Amino acid sequence: MAKDLPKRSENYSEWYNQIVTKADLAEHSSVRGCMVIKPYGYAIWEKMQAALDKMFKDTGHVNAYFPLFVPKSFLEKEEGHAEGFAKECAVVTHYRLKTDPDNKGKLIVDKDAKLEEELIVRPTSEAIIWNTYKGWIQSYRDLPLLINQWANVVRWEMRTRLFLRTTEFLWQEGHTAHATKEEAIIESEKMLGVYTDFAEKFIALPVLKGVKTAHERFAGALETYCIEALMQDGKALQAGTSHFLGQNFAKAFDVKFSSKEGKLDHVWATSWGVTTRLIGALVMAHSDDEGLVLPPMLAPIQAVIIPIYKTEDELKLVSEKALQIKKDLEAKGISVKFDNSDNRSPGWKFAEYEFKGVPVRIAIGPRDMQNGSVELARRDTKTKEVVKQDVLVEKVVGLMKEIQDSLFNKALAFRKESTHSVDTYADFKKAIEKGGFVYAHWDGTSETEEKIKEETKATIRCIPLDAKPESGKCILSGKPSAQRVVFAMAY
Amino acid sequence: MAKDLPKRSENYSEWYNQIVTKADLAEHSSVRGCMVIKPYGYAIWEKMQAALDKMFKDTGHVNAYFPLFVPKSFLEKEEGHAEGFAKECAVVTHYRLKTDPDNKGKLIVDKDAKLEEELIVRPTSEAIIWNTYKGWIQSYRDLPLLINQWANVVRWEMRTRLFLRTTEFLWQEGHTAHATKEEAIIESEKMLGVYTDFAEKFIALPVLKGVKTAHERFAGALETYCIEALMQDGKALQAGTSHFLGQNFAKAFDVKFSSKEGKLDHVWATSWGVTTRLIGALVMAHSDDEGLVLPPMLAPIQAVIIPIYKTEDELKLVSEKALQIKKDLEAKGISVKFDNSDNRSPGWKFAEYEFKGVPVRIAIGPRDMQNGSVELARRDTKTKEVVKQDVLVEKVVGLMKEIQDSLFNKALAFRKESTHSVDTYADFKKAIEKGGFVYAHWDGTSETEEKIKEETKATIRCIPLDAKPESGKCILSGKPSAQRVVFAMAY
Repeated sequence: MAKDLPKRSENYSEWYNQIVTKADLAEHSSVRGCMVIKPYGYAIWEKMQAALDKMFKDTGHVNAYFPLFVPKSFLEKEEGHAEGFAKECAVVTHYRLKTDPDNKGKLIVDKDAKLEEELIVRPTSEAIIWNTYKGWIQSYRDLPLLINQWANVVRWEMRTRLFLRTTEFLWQEGHTAHATKEEAIIESEKMLGVYTDFAEKFIALPVLKGVKTAHERFAGALETYCIEALMQDGKALQAGTSHFLGQNFAKAFDVKFSSKEGKLDHVWATSWGVTTRLIGALVMAHSDDEGLVLPPMLAPIQAVIIPIYKTEDELKLVSEKALQIKKDLEAKGISVKFDNSDNRSPGWKFAEYEFKGVPVRIAIGPRDMQNGSVELARRDTKTKEVVKQDVLVEKVVGLMKEIQDSLFNKALAFRKESTHSVDTYADFKKAIEKGGFVYAHWDGTSETEEKIKEETKATIRCIPLDAKPESGKCILSGKPSAQRVVFAMAY
Repeated sequence: MAKDLPKRSENYSEWYNQIVTKADLAEHSSVRGCMVIKPYGYAIWEKMQAALDKMFKDTGHVNAYFPLFVPKSFLEKEEGHAEGFAKECAVVTHYRLKTDPDNKGKLIVDKDAKLEEELIVRPTSEAIIWNTYKGWIQSYRDLPLLINQWANVVRWEMRTRLFLRTTEFLWQEGHTAHATKEEAIIESEKMLGVYTDFAEKFIALPVLKGVKTAHERFAGALETYCIEALMQDGKALQAGTSHFLGQNFAKAFDVKFSSKEGKLDHVWATSWGVTTRLIGALVMAHSDDEGLVLPPMLAPIQAVIIPIYKTEDELKLVSEKALQIKKDLEAKGISVKFDNSDNRSPGWKFAEYEFKGVPVRIAIGPRDMQNGSVELARRDTKTKEVVKQDVLVEKVVGLMKEIQDSLFNKALAFRKESTHSVDTYADFKKAIEKGGFVYAHWDGTSETEEKIKEETKATIRCIPLDAKPESGKCILSGKPSAQRVVFAMAY
């Protein structure tokens, strides 16, 4: 088995951990809960960033940068927000170290350099940004304000997993200000749409669009929109959220604008974000027992060319052709690696790039040169075929789209198979145990929601946006319900 | 005068501050020493990032991401490094806040959540990165390791100025590992070359290449290469540094590799970085008493089109043409803004984009429509001319290069005028007082260097790399010197 990778069916969790580390995506650092994103993993993040950034700009947003630190008193201003975020955070209390007088070569905190007010390393930036917006917004002419930030954030986590839950992670956070409630809601929904498009077109990951229950809402939001994806082990993963914040932050930070009619009112807000967690989703959605499987749209290397040779002369012959193929593919916008390293066998390279999820592998040796062909292999289906060199470029270009679509369709089919509707609590428990999305009626109370979570560990992932109204009875309380909601075990 | 901007000749420092804030580049935040980089300023940073990132990748580097926090004990490991960086830094001592029992709605630090070991918000990442490299490097096959990181860093500064010196700033930091001393030195010099190219070709800023004196070296480096630029007030600004770190960090973190011959040795290192300070350099190098002047290569808006009209019909007529021009310019890769906002007069818009440094302004009104012409104005020379619409695109494309070159040549001429050679301490003092780069002989001791600094506030900016050997006598001590070094007052 590839790099001693456990099978998904045997130990999904360990399978995931090992893919992430052995495919060189990331590793745990020496700093508790923080990860190192290695070059191969970071290259995926760069592709995600480029695609998302373009989508944000195409929808009228601009980037800016706000401070890493949030003064403690700012967090206190929005009560729900403080409740949700102040609890587990990195607190800066001092601004200097000094040499330990009793132990030369060691450093200690300089007690004289205590901050008057503690600074929190941002767990999210609503507080610092709305404090800034106060100075930027006076009139309806200043609205809408459509700003995004690419940044690192810190939330102190006790149990961490690479990409899925880390103390520090990278993300983007959009923070917008609007003149009307309607416009802010439209913005929240628009950005949920952007996230949906990104997940489906780039990660090849079908997602459910919905809103969170009051209980699961972002601290300080009136409505939290989310996209929820299903992983291969039947657990759900929240892949992105977009919050309608109402006037909560505008009130907390006193941000008012004068309308066209000269009336003074608080501004309406949204915020929305996705994180490096998406790399975890990408890994878990498509990879298999042989390692990583990457959708072409986000693969740092989309095609690898491996030369097969025994003599230096053969290598020379093959290399010339390989470099020509590389050039031709690159001209079509495909990123190609030609691996002619001389310390690894072709077999080793085959296994390596398979493990690293490179969508397409091209092998070329002396016999191929005679036949004007190459061997072309697909990572996702693990099929291979002999292809004539003169149609190779066209073929590979086509495969990029074919693999991308195929991964999406496979994930969609899996989600379909793994989605069930139940009407009784007994059936619910069985369905949850099997994994997948479970559509069931719920009476709308946090009490019931928490009780179900307590008893089954399942949470309401979302109240789906596209669900048909359907009256029924809550699986737990039997009280009336107007729509099914989606339950699942979740990451 | 534009937006009540002080003249450079009257108050250079205030002139700079006001340009940065009034051109919407950045502002001070409510967090002491930290700035908010506003969308217009951040757009310049994005252009800088894109250009530099490409140059790094073209020279074989890849990006990765390392933790924000550095455990205190890691900083202690490299003595010089600890000495240089541990002193003024943000220290995280706790990981939780709690509600104040005596004051509901307020948060206090939870004393029970004290970290066993304090974490330092990275002032630079050598320590955390070399601790990680230890796990990545075993053999010469793992070398060279050529990694760059885009990140935020924090150095507690008492006196801050937007872009030039802030507690938090954005930067890139390259960290490379090599098998030989020679290779590491070549890398340090190569990256200095990349910075030089970037400064000269993109910022249109001529720079001196040199090495720092021992006294001014990066904490932990054996050699610090730097580029030094001259601002319009005659003060020098360090625009980028590249450090040859020897085996210091490899020894501190025990990073060894086995050579081809099977010998075990410590790895050789470099690190190199440029920061958002470059935006400050950009502002100070080219701007004038009417506001910002941006080199086309880094201007977020390269050309602005302003419609001149009285009636709605005129606006419609003019807009159609303006949008066609915009499209044609964009097809040539030029970023264009068509400002048809109806709440500002053309005069206001002229002043606004002039202040914001947009390189080229195109004004078009009904009379222009009749004549098949537009009014074309250059920001740098403040000249304008009537240009036929059918040659406009070609003309603007040409202007992009012409303005870029002209800004560079103007800065180069200014540097030439402001560079002097002196042989006596009396002449040195006079020259330093006038401002500019002063080439003088120095005996090579830190003692002399510090004494000169004490008496004149001038520092040795660099020992220039391209200087001819020339024997002489130190201006202060009279001791022999083999080469002139460059003194200046500096930011």
